[in-house]
Amino acid sequence: MIVAEEFDVLVLGGGSAGYAAALRSVQHGFTVGLVEKAKLGGTCLHWGCIPTKAYLHAAELADDAKESEKYGVDVDFKGVNLAKVKEYKDGIVAGKHKGLTGLLKMRKVQVIEGEGKLVSQNEIEVDGTRYKGKNIVLATGSTSKTFGLPISDKIITSTEALEMDRTPKSAIVLGGGVIGCEFASAWTSYGTEVTIIEGLPNLVPNEDPSIIKNLERSFKKRGIKFNTGTFFKEVEETADGVKVTLEDGKVFEAEICLVAVGRGPVTEGFGFEDQGITLDRGFVITNERLHTGVGNIYAIGDIVPGLQLAHRGYQQGIFVAEEIAGNNPVIVEDINIPKVTFCEPEIMSVGYTQPKAEEKFGKENIEVTEYNLAGNGKSSILGTGGIIKMVGVKGGPIVGVHGIGTRISEQIGEAQLIVNWEAYPEDVATLVHAHPTQNEALGEAAMALFGHPLHG
Amino acid sequence: MIVAEEFDVLVLGGGSAGYAAALRSVQHGFTVGLVEKAKLGGTCLHWGCIPTKAYLHAAELADDAKESEKYGVDVDFKGVNLAKVKEYKDGIVAGKHKGLTGLLKMRKVQVIEGEGKLVSQNEIEVDGTRYKGKNIVLATGSTSKTFGLPISDKIITSTEALEMDRTPKSAIVLGGGVIGCEFASAWTSYGTEVTIIEGLPNLVPNEDPSIIKNLERSFKKRGIKFNTGTFFKEVEETADGVKVTLEDGKVFEAEICLVAVGRGPVTEGFGFEDQGITLDRGFVITNERLHTGVGNIYAIGDIVPGLQLAHRGYQQGIFVAEEIAGNNPVIVEDINIPKVTFCEPEIMSVGYTQPKAEEKFGKENIEVTEYNLAGNGKSSILGTGGIIKMVGVKGGPIVGVHGIGTRISEQIGEAQLIVNWEAYPEDVATLVHAHPTQNEALGEAAMALFGHPLHG
Repeated sequence: MIVAEEFDVLVLGGGSAGYAAALRSVQHGFTVGLVEKAKLGGTCLHWGCIPTKAYLHAAELADDAKESEKYGVDVDFKGVNLAKVKEYKDGIVAGKHKGLTGLLKMRKVQVIEGEGKLVSQNEIEVDGTRYKGKNIVLATGSTSKTFGLPISDKIITSTEALEMDRTPKSAIVLGGGVIGCEFASAWTSYGTEVTIIEGLPNLVPNEDPSIIKNLERSFKKRGIKFNTGTFFKEVEETADGVKVTLEDGKVFEAEICLVAVGRGPVTEGFGFEDQGITLDRGFVITNERLHTGVGNIYAIGDIVPGLQLAHRGYQQGIFVAEEIAGNNPVIVEDINIPKVTFCEPEIMSVGYTQPKAEEKFGKENIEVTEYNLAGNGKSSILGTGGIIKMVGVKGGPIVGVHGIGTRISEQIGEAQLIVNWEAYPEDVATLVHAHPTQNEALGEAAMALFGHPLHG
Repeated sequence: MIVAEEFDVLVLGGGSAGYAAALRSVQHGFTVGLVEKAKLGGTCLHWGCIPTKAYLHAAELADDAKESEKYGVDVDFKGVNLAKVKEYKDGIVAGKHKGLTGLLKMRKVQVIEGEGKLVSQNEIEVDGTRYKGKNIVLATGSTSKTFGLPISDKIITSTEALEMDRTPKSAIVLGGGVIGCEFASAWTSYGTEVTIIEGLPNLVPNEDPSIIKNLERSFKKRGIKFNTGTFFKEVEETADGVKVTLEDGKVFEAEICLVAVGRGPVTEGFGFEDQGITLDRGFVITNERLHTGVGNIYAIGDIVPGLQLAHRGYQQGIFVAEEIAGNNPVIVEDINIPKVTFCEPEIMSVGYTQPKAEEKFGKENIEVTEYNLAGNGKSSILGTGGIIKMVGVKGGPIVGVHGIGTRISEQIGEAQLIVNWEAYPEDVATLVHAHPTQNEALGEAAMALFGHPLHG
């Protein structure tokens, strides 16, 4: 057994969480090794956030083309060429991959290609070579759950969906969460007939009820079918497609079935448990400072229970690098992490939903306001409806900001400052919001929460 | 002479500033009269912010259609039908006008139609009827400057430009400020050959130099010609168009000429000076609390020297209503008012530019960071370059945030909270920005200013 270098920080997994930990660690003067078996950038860059957003941008362009006449722009929409969308997507991903690889090299992160295994409390073995880490950071990420369904060319996960070179005529999407709704949205824009099957009573079940209501209405208007409240029992391939049977016996058929029932941690076969690390249903259990309780081993990203989001991964990667550097970083709680769903209409949210705020602070201590985008000039110009909803503690801070509407995702910036800085309605209401932007809607919502809506 | 009602607050002018003052005043229980000679909503709604943004959205759709193939969307772009763009624009304006009229009625603001004249320190006369106001608020707005040029069907201002029903083949735009750049941008997207003439050395001369450089490069790339650094001397109509001669003798010819050399206050003939109000080059001079020094007369909006922006007008309207109510509102300085230019690429800015910050705080006390959108995933997906620039006081707060790029306007929300709340780089850098959004670029810029860029 060869024992190669020793690093101050040795990271297992080069996705968003892992590479952020590596980059921030070198900024503190640490030597850093980063083990990756597939591609630097991980799920987010290759099979997640970035490629799906490219697909959704093509979808937006298709929708715009279909609607352009209303705006005085003469356009013939002839269809979406999925092979070309894929080419565009591949170009974006390749560019970002090259950039990331170059950045890691420039910053002198030593990338170790291959499958790593934790073989002691301070060693990872890769292809027969052992690398030592004074600190070890586990960031092995997640993968699509399939509940044992056989993945094929008809029953697919998001990974396969992003490699398709033609648009299906019809699709069943199992799961009405973020991933399911994003694919349902893009495919509908491409011309696919989509039906979403969601076992819980609503689409995007983690969002605020007002947002859910608005999304379901918008999806219906767009012709996206959905069946909620009943779980699926069986998915079978048929001669020309797939057949999904629900627990109540209802049957749905389509050309393909996308399985989007969540993502599970990738932690099997890495030797974590052998070193005394606690796993719970595959997730690595840590304390609130992301320490596993074993040696100097930390865990970050999608293998740590909580929100599975790339930017939570970045943040945890940075957090652990700061922690190792002894900088005592502040814990960012999951509730304060911004969330965006890029379906059409887009959803953004940060902080407490109304029901969660009522549970936490007491119903009588909460006040909410819903500002309708019908009153927002820029939204009318874009042809979108939607709402901004703010949840506040009476006489206290705004604890939740939620929005739905075309392009509303970018409002997450102001929203997350408001919630994370514990702003009172008057801190926002007294400021001037630029006209005519969608951003004004946040100012109006804050004014309403403060008791003085201007245009509302 | 009939003396009609007496109001607690009597507002002269129903534009953004005036109607905001009226609406907020009734919220404090005041009786309010609002005198308007043309249309409620004023310049912003009928001839400014709202209609131009509708034109710019049509321009965006045209650009998207031309570029769609790159993204895998098959589209035939056949042209822009300006008569239809105008119809769409008219629809938006009519809808908002109806909404505003209804809102004022519902809130019991008494709208007095007609041309008002200040006839005493507490009276405004409208068509022979005198209305009394315990407090009077002047909000008579602004109009396009023309420097004596004869407005015709070939030499036009933005007002006429918004009524055109066909796209000119070529246009000279006099003035490279916000209005000039917005029209130049829209017309270019429509297929017009545009040349901007700007007397100052650069386009958008009030912006940060990095933004200016980036805009000029983008405009060149888009085929928008511009001649800067020399003022025009003469504008003449020719048989088939217009001829513009500069002070250096250079001559430009085109089908039409848009005069976009700024807006001047509308204060003549209203009797302001007769009541002892001080005018300076047409602007109403007030103290910093917007009082004219005469009786209980305030002035707000574009007639008060400073930024001529609808949202500054709203804010001043609200400010004066609060002041009259005795609520001692906080003064929002012009430097902290967010600014957006909706050309392609869009510009947003709030706070100090680098040169202004150097002047104010000393060059040695300033640090700046420029984050290139090439590193921002969502921007790459949208196909846009650009930058986010932050200006900070060393060891102190961020005092300026500037951005340029497609759709960057909506980042003004987070930007203005940062500047108005005097955030330190670490207050922003330690927060999680949602991935993949353009908003992440603000987080990256703050991290860089804090000394630890992640992706930069």
